Amino acid sequence: MEIAKLGEFGLIDHLTKDIKPVNESTLYGVGDDCAVLHYPESEVLVTTDMLMEGIHFDLTYITMQELGYKAAMVNISDIFAMNGTPRQMTVSLAIGKRLKVEDIEAFYDGLRKACEKWSVDVVGGDTTASYTGLAISITCIGEAKKEDIVYRNGANETDLVCVTGDLGAAYMGLQLLEREKSVFYQQVDAMNKKLQEAHKAGNAKLVEHLQQEARKLNDFQPDFAGKEYLLQRQLKPEARGDVINLLRENNIHPTAMMDISDGLSSELLHICKQSHCGCRVYEKNIPIDYQTAVMAEELNMNVTTCAMNGGDDYELLFTCPIGDHDKLDALESKGIKQIGYITKEELGARLISRDNKEFDITAQGWNALKE
Amino acid sequence: MEIAKLGEFGLIDHLTKDIKPVNESTLYGVGDDCAVLHYPESEVLVTTDMLMEGIHFDLTYITMQELGYKAAMVNISDIFAMNGTPRQMTVSLAIGKRLKVEDIEAFYDGLRKACEKWSVDVVGGDTTASYTGLAISITCIGEAKKEDIVYRNGANETDLVCVTGDLGAAYMGLQLLEREKSVFYQQVDAMNKKLQEAHKAGNAKLVEHLQQEARKLNDFQPDFAGKEYLLQRQLKPEARGDVINLLRENNIHPTAMMDISDGLSSELLHICKQSHCGCRVYEKNIPIDYQTAVMAEELNMNVTTCAMNGGDDYELLFTCPIGDHDKLDALESKGIKQIGYITKEELGARLISRDNKEFDITAQGWNALKE
Repeated sequence: MEIAKLGEFGLIDHLTKDIKPVNESTLYGVGDDCAVLHYPESEVLVTTDMLMEGIHFDLTYITMQELGYKAAMVNISDIFAMNGTPRQMTVSLAIGKRLKVEDIEAFYDGLRKACEKWSVDVVGGDTTASYTGLAISITCIGEAKKEDIVYRNGANETDLVCVTGDLGAAYMGLQLLEREKSVFYQQVDAMNKKLQEAHKAGNAKLVEHLQQEARKLNDFQPDFAGKEYLLQRQLKPEARGDVINLLRENNIHPTAMMDISDGLSSELLHICKQSHCGCRVYEKNIPIDYQTAVMAEELNMNVTTCAMNGGDDYELLFTCPIGDHDKLDALESKGIKQIGYITKEELGARLISRDNKEFDITAQGWNALKE
Repeated sequence: MEIAKLGEFGLIDHLTKDIKPVNESTLYGVGDDCAVLHYPESEVLVTTDMLMEGIHFDLTYITMQELGYKAAMVNISDIFAMNGTPRQMTVSLAIGKRLKVEDIEAFYDGLRKACEKWSVDVVGGDTTASYTGLAISITCIGEAKKEDIVYRNGANETDLVCVTGDLGAAYMGLQLLEREKSVFYQQVDAMNKKLQEAHKAGNAKLVEHLQQEARKLNDFQPDFAGKEYLLQRQLKPEARGDVINLLRENNIHPTAMMDISDGLSSELLHICKQSHCGCRVYEKNIPIDYQTAVMAEELNMNVTTCAMNGGDDYELLFTCPIGDHDKLDALESKGIKQIGYITKEELGARLISRDNKEFDITAQGWNALKE
C-alpha cells in the first residue's frame, strides 16, 4: 500500500494500534505532544541514535524487519551499558518514496520484537517524508538506582578488563555481505555485456537465451553455509541484558562499562580517557569465534585487528576490582572473559601480542565522519 | 573547516565543550552511553521530532543558526503544550559533505540560544554522516507534577476554546520566501538565455556586459520591508512558555492543550477526536496579524484559510471551563483569545463564518506524507 494514501496520522495510527504499555512507569504513550513517564525513586537514563541509509545500513543486505530489530537493540544496549533497565522508546522515521506501508510495518514488527524481548514500551515518535533514503532516529529511556549506575569514568588501577561474548564476527558478517553483493553485481555486469554483444550481432536466439539466464540472476541466493553466525551477528545483534542480570546475581559491580559499537580499541580508549588510566590487554585473551577466524583467513585479514577494530558487536566492555577475579573466573563459561587490566594513565593503552610484544592501541574503528 | 578532519568524536567534543548543565535534574549529560536525569516527585515528559532537508527546511531560506533555534524551539513547545517544564534535550545530526564545521557550530549556537532561553540542558545525541541532505532529530525531556499535566483528551462540553498570539503569519512568511526564491531563479534563467543568445551572435562586448550583470544577481537581496514579522514567524518561532506561566499565575487550568504546528484545523480535530467532543469556532475571533492579512490580499488568498491551515505557528490551542471566562477576558490584551466553545461530539467540529454560516472543519494542514 502507498504511504501517501494513509498520510502521517493514518500511518502512525496504523503502526501504533497494537502497542500496549507493559511498564508501570509508562503513564501515557503515543498520541499526545509528549509521552509521560513516572520514576519515583530512580534516575532516568536517555540515549539516542541516528541511522542513515547508505551510511549505517544497506537495504540490499538487511530486511526491514531485521533493521527494526537492530535499530531498537542498539539503543537498548546503551541502557544496559549504564547498568540500567530499558523502559521506553521513541521512534522517528523519515521515509523515501520507494518504501511501502508494508515495509514500515515490517520495520515496526522487528522493532517490537526487540522491545518485547526486554519489555520496552514504544511511547511516541515522528513519521515524516524523506526526499532520499530512509533515516531512523531512536531514543531509549531507562531507569537505574543512583548507586547502581556505571559510567565510563570509574575504572581504577589494577581493575580487571572484561568483555562479553566474542568480537569481530559482526564485522566479518559485513565483509561477507559486501563480497556477495559485489560478486552479484559482477555477474550482472558480465551478463549485460554478453546481451549487448548478442544484440549487436543480431543473434535473436542467443538474446532470448541470455534474457532467460538474466532473469535467473534475480533469484541469486548466495551460499552462506558455515557462515550463518557471522551474518546473524551483523544483521541481528543482541543487547547483553543477560550479562547485566548475571553480574547482579553474582554481586559483581563493574567500575566502568560501555557497549562495543565502534570496536574494542575505540571503546578501550574511551574508558582510559574518561577514567584517566591506561590498560594492558592480552591478544591471546580476546574472544574470537571459530567462524570469525576462518573468514579472516579466507579474506587474508589479521583476525586480531578485526576483533579489535570491527564494530557492531554490541558486546559489553567493563572493568571490575581485582577482588572479583574468582567470581569472574566462574563466569567464563557463561561468556565473560577477562582480557587484561587497568594501569596508571602514563603507561598508556597497550595490546600485548602472543609473542609478548607491546603495541599502542589506536582507534581504527568505524567513524562515519572520517574520510 | 572540513568535518572529516575532526571526525565524530572530535566534532562532538568541539560542539559540546561549552555545554554546562543548569538543571538540578541533570545528573550527567554528554559523554557516556546515556544521559542520567533525576526526577524524584515528578513525571517525565518526552517528545521527539525529525526534520529533513528539503521537506521541513530549505537552506536557501534559513540560516544554520535559525535552523538550530527553530529545531530546539519546536520541541520545547511540545513540553509546554503538556503544561510541563522543559529540562533536557538530545540532538542527533546526520550531516552531508557540503556542510563545514562552522555550519554545525552555527546550528549549535542557535540551538543553545533557544535552550538558554528556557534553561534546557543539552545532554547528548549522535552526530553522523549523510550521503544527501541534513537530517535533524531532537528529543526534549521535561517534567510536570501529575496533577498539572494537560493532555489532548480532557476537553468537556461548554469549555471555551482559546488560542495564543496570532495565526497564519508563519505560513505567509513561507509563501513570501518561496515567491522571492522563484523570482530570483526566473532572473537567473532569463540572464542565462540572454547570455546564450549573445554567445551565438558572437557579440563579445554584450557577453562581457551580461556576465557583469549576472555577477550582480548573486548579491540579490529581496526587499522584505513591511513583512519582517512574517519572516520572523517562519524563521524564528517562539515556544509559548510565557503563556504557560501566565495561566499558572492566574490560576487557570486548561482541560486540553496542544501546540499549533500543523495548522489550527488539524489541531482542533485532534482535540475533538481525543476528547470525544465537537466544537464551534468563530471566524471573526481568529487572531490574525495585519501583515498576514496584507500578504494574503497580495497573494489573492483567503486569510482565514491561511490562519486555519497554515502550519509552523507554534502557538498554543487550549480549552478551559466556562467559569474561567472572565479571567481569560482579562488576558486578551496579553495575547490569549477565546475563539469558540466545545460541543457534544455528534455536533461535529465547525467554523462559523462572519456571515453566520457553518462549515465543517477539515484538516488541510501540512502533512509530509500526503501527496
